[in-house]
Amino acid sequence: VNGIPETLRVDERATRPAIDLWIGFAAPPPMEGAVVLHDRSPAAIWALAARSGVEDASRVGVVANDADGIAAARAAGAGAVIALSSDSADRQVLLHAQPDHLVEPDALPALLERAYSAERAMRSFVLLNPGPGLTTAGVRRAATVADVCHREPEFGAIDAGVRRKLRAVADVGVDWRAVLLAGSGTLADEAALRAAVRPGARVVVVRNGVYGERLHEIARRAGFLPIPVDAPWTEPVDPAAVAAELRADVDAVAVVHHETTTGLLNPLAEIAAVTRAAGVRLMVDAVSSFGAEPITLRGSGIDFLACSANKCLHGLPGLAFVLVSPDGVERAMQSGPATLYADLRGYLEAEDRGSPPFTPSVPATLALDQALDELLALGVGRHQAAYRRRAAILDEGFQRLGLRGLVAPEHRSSSIRTVTLPEGVSYDRLHALLKQEGFVIYAGQGPLAATAFRVACMGALDEELMSAFVERLGAAIAACQSAVVA
Amino acid sequence: VNGIPETLRVDERATRPAIDLWIGFAAPPPMEGAVVLHDRSPAAIWALAARSGVEDASRVGVVANDADGIAAARAAGAGAVIALSSDSADRQVLLHAQPDHLVEPDALPALLERAYSAERAMRSFVLLNPGPGLTTAGVRRAATVADVCHREPEFGAIDAGVRRKLRAVADVGVDWRAVLLAGSGTLADEAALRAAVRPGARVVVVRNGVYGERLHEIARRAGFLPIPVDAPWTEPVDPAAVAAELRADVDAVAVVHHETTTGLLNPLAEIAAVTRAAGVRLMVDAVSSFGAEPITLRGSGIDFLACSANKCLHGLPGLAFVLVSPDGVERAMQSGPATLYADLRGYLEAEDRGSPPFTPSVPATLALDQALDELLALGVGRHQAAYRRRAAILDEGFQRLGLRGLVAPEHRSSSIRTVTLPEGVSYDRLHALLKQEGFVIYAGQGPLAATAFRVACMGALDEELMSAFVERLGAAIAACQSAVVA
Repeated sequence: VNGIPETLRVDERATRPAIDLWIGFAAPPPMEGAVVLHDRSPAAIWALAARSGVEDASRVGVVANDADGIAAARAAGAGAVIALSSDSADRQVLLHAQPDHLVEPDALPALLERAYSAERAMRSFVLLNPGPGLTTAGVRRAATVADVCHREPEFGAIDAGVRRKLRAVADVGVDWRAVLLAGSGTLADEAALRAAVRPGARVVVVRNGVYGERLHEIARRAGFLPIPVDAPWTEPVDPAAVAAELRADVDAVAVVHHETTTGLLNPLAEIAAVTRAAGVRLMVDAVSSFGAEPITLRGSGIDFLACSANKCLHGLPGLAFVLVSPDGVERAMQSGPATLYADLRGYLEAEDRGSPPFTPSVPATLALDQALDELLALGVGRHQAAYRRRAAILDEGFQRLGLRGLVAPEHRSSSIRTVTLPEGVSYDRLHALLKQEGFVIYAGQGPLAATAFRVACMGALDEELMSAFVERLGAAIAACQSAVVA
Repeated sequence: VNGIPETLRVDERATRPAIDLWIGFAAPPPMEGAVVLHDRSPAAIWALAARSGVEDASRVGVVANDADGIAAARAAGAGAVIALSSDSADRQVLLHAQPDHLVEPDALPALLERAYSAERAMRSFVLLNPGPGLTTAGVRRAATVADVCHREPEFGAIDAGVRRKLRAVADVGVDWRAVLLAGSGTLADEAALRAAVRPGARVVVVRNGVYGERLHEIARRAGFLPIPVDAPWTEPVDPAAVAAELRADVDAVAVVHHETTTGLLNPLAEIAAVTRAAGVRLMVDAVSSFGAEPITLRGSGIDFLACSANKCLHGLPGLAFVLVSPDGVERAMQSGPATLYADLRGYLEAEDRGSPPFTPSVPATLALDQALDELLALGVGRHQAAYRRRAAILDEGFQRLGLRGLVAPEHRSSSIRTVTLPEGVSYDRLHALLKQEGFVIYAGQGPLAATAFRVACMGALDEELMSAFVERLGAAIAACQSAVVA
């Protein structure tokens, strides 16, 4: 039985086969239970589906052995379009009709098991890892609505629209720049951090989690002789400790706003006040906070904010960005790029010329455009409130189940929880039991891997789903513990 | 009238509206010509579509004002699912049903024009730019078949499968490594070039096009004091000139196999023989050649081959990769990474640990997996032969039209042609006329921008389409020239 509410992602639940009705166009039927249809037309496929009570095109699968059958299946919107080939001379023609798969009859059973059974690898689990998370149908559809040349004006308009919408979410004016990068959040971190520091200058790096350590490593490799300001992984850094390290040769401070390691928030506004007062640049990794947490950028002292599309904005992975203040742009122009791909200045100059410097992640850009439309249609405040409500369901549920959060309530974000594994519960077993129910949780990071697990509420989730998860979590923990007792 | 054959991409031609039948669920109809349906069910939508002669779900559009209507439209496979909201309280509920767009009634006409009219920006032009090119329906569908957590074994299996299939296309054994990177081909270039050179050593860089100049710039920024070997943009480099620069402190040679600037091939096998004999590493930018041109890797002397998913392999942009020989792996382990994101060694070590170092481009990885399945189902030899046939159609057509290719026939690739603009023909005008017919051509690069244009035959194209293009090109040139005469 399926743990995911019927209302959510109705056509993509994780624990049933992908296809309810299989159709073939020639006797004998391609597999047991399939229906043979002699009319290779979408109307015939639809009529059969309706008669069979399968009122969802994506849950109809078609096995065809010619191009007309493939075309009919595609036009009907079938969720599986399989071309069957027994004669190798057919292959070019069949491939040209663009099926989802081309197989020899012998290989069909294995394909059905691998790609369409209840146990298929690519099923829609409810992702409670800290991104990439669940996306909406609209976002996934927008990603591949058309193949687009990135040098044509239609892509330029999308690119400009994404930058405009990012500024709207950030509540900054056109004096801020938004630089889009094809890559992960770490690329945005590297581009932003390198741009914040002039040749020969140093950078103070806050380290209280894996991502703070990563910023330190980026700075070290860049030759910036980073000055670490450390705090325990479960404690926010003290802004005064940052202030104390601002020697004359320090050009910038780098800090992770929200440590994905633990779900800990660092005191961003207070650190920004310190850097603003000192006149040094502030580079912020907001990869797992931007969109979900309120962040004041305008006039705050923050100069570089690095983020990715696929966390709290609900876009697809493969795209990252940096928001840059006017002071940040000035600093970027003085930085000494020792890399080409992570050189923020190069991207800024390319934007001035009107074309991206390198081939962008076109599908992820189209997807982010759609995700931002959806976010702005709901409203930034309501988007953030929805995160807080989902996190509250987790907090209440964990308390009810007697689970201990690693971070004190006042320092927790609204998107990630790190929870100590209860007595007798191994992560692997807990993960496996919950995955059977359709939920994917996330391991603790570094030394926490053995003692804790993580649950994120990023992505196109809802409260009903979080409540269902808490219930299943309780049952899974009980199952682990009773197995130990037995 | 549409220049694209009916057989090709039947549901996505560039010069007609996206939707043939609009349906609303409440009177009055949402727009002129729309049909009002009182039954919010997929079966009713299908029956109406069949009755209306629209036998393609993707060409049916639905405007709904409640979640049930949105769900019915999605289940029917409608190509447009628009939620209409006049009451702001509805928005969260409507968005939760995941329409393609949510608009107020006032904004509907503008949305229809922008997203669904014959003039919509996101229509499927026939892309004759040198990638990202056209992809198949299977590739686009695979990209977003499910949201996947990149730390789960199901993604690990896809990732391993992609690397295995890349080795199959390259015809190398498991002693070669395939490193996947989230980013463009330039990232692969930077990661490969940096890995080929030890700290303090130098690199010889072939420069006879924009991408050779880019390799030189990557090497310069990395501090490798690159030694250029220059040739005119239309001439292959002389392998003896490369050999002449192999001084004792040179660790590697970097060369672009196929200059996307012009469509010129450099003599890769001969250069590899030089580096093999000298015992230095060879780094090759094969971004626009791998897949289309025969390349012998095994035992050839090539150690690092950088490429991207979205050119001759027909995947989506946002993913690049480096194939690394055993000697290349050894060298990478001796390189001195001055960047984190472009550090090939870090990726190799992460693969050894069994998990990607940074969030991968998940959708582009799924898409490349499918694209490689399709390529291998056809066969590498037939894939390359198809490129040669398409290029031959261009060559014959250009000759018939009296157009002059910039590169001598014996040095041309099978995927890109650079052609001198004929008398009286401006690129902008030619581009505009051809775009009206559904074809996107590409400007000349650098100093060639004013005098030449480019045509690529990369991607999910076919011969019929190339012939149609040649015919339209002739008509467009004639139109430009007659306008000049008049």
